[in-house]
Amino acid sequence: MFFSWADAPVTPIIEGFRAKILHSERMTFVRWEIDAGAALPEHSHPHEQVAHVFRGRFELTIDGENRVVGAGESAVIPPNAVHSGRALTDCEIMDAFCPVREDYRGVPTGDVLRSAATSS
Amino acid sequence: MFFSWADAPVTPIIEGFRAKILHSERMTFVRWEIDAGAALPEHSHPHEQVAHVFRGRFELTIDGENRVVGAGESAVIPPNAVHSGRALTDCEIMDAFCPVREDYRGVPTGDVLRSAATSS
Repeated sequence: MFFSWADAPVTPIIEGFRAKILHSERMTFVRWEIDAGAALPEHSHPHEQVAHVFRGRFELTIDGENRVVGAGESAVIPPNAVHSGRALTDCEIMDAFCPVREDYRGVPTGDVLRSAATSS
Repeated sequence: MFFSWADAPVTPIIEGFRAKILHSERMTFVRWEIDAGAALPEHSHPHEQVAHVFRGRFELTIDGENRVVGAGESAVIPPNAVHSGRALTDCEIMDAFCPVREDYRGVPTGDVLRSAATSS
């Protein structure tokens, strides 16, 4: 039930994006460290995603709407919305996904509720 | 789709707990500023809750399990789990709830997806 981000393994998801991942029963949280200049290719997924920017500035395009989000800001990416982005500076961002990102189950994570994975 | 926490109204939920609230379609995020010594009475709700501690130390009891969570730690509170707590220091915590906390709809929030409220 308790989780330390410092102790969580780091997973390189795509170039310039290093992730720590926590799955709960209904949500997945990803804390990203992102290098300045790293690009998030255009993609979509059925999960709702809410990105909370802790540090830095990240240029984000959601369904054609472009905006720079900075520290203290959040962006809501609806289910199936096409989105892409680029880190304008080094960034720290925490994404919350709903439902759980089952496609992230195979990577090293801080999965504190493993029973949820096996019972689904 | 974009939300600034600095611009969000502050809602005093219970004594010593000041909240800023963001509802998305499937989740509710609450950023708390909590005074040292403030107490969270024992309660439960059907929502899953994940508490991310940004600053301070908070003593949390979940279904009888007691632990102090600090900066860089998170706690997963399962649906319907009985929980209570106490701020040992001034704290900054972000809770993520799933599904949306409809009981928080009536208070001033940063509700970026108002259509979700009226369509449910």
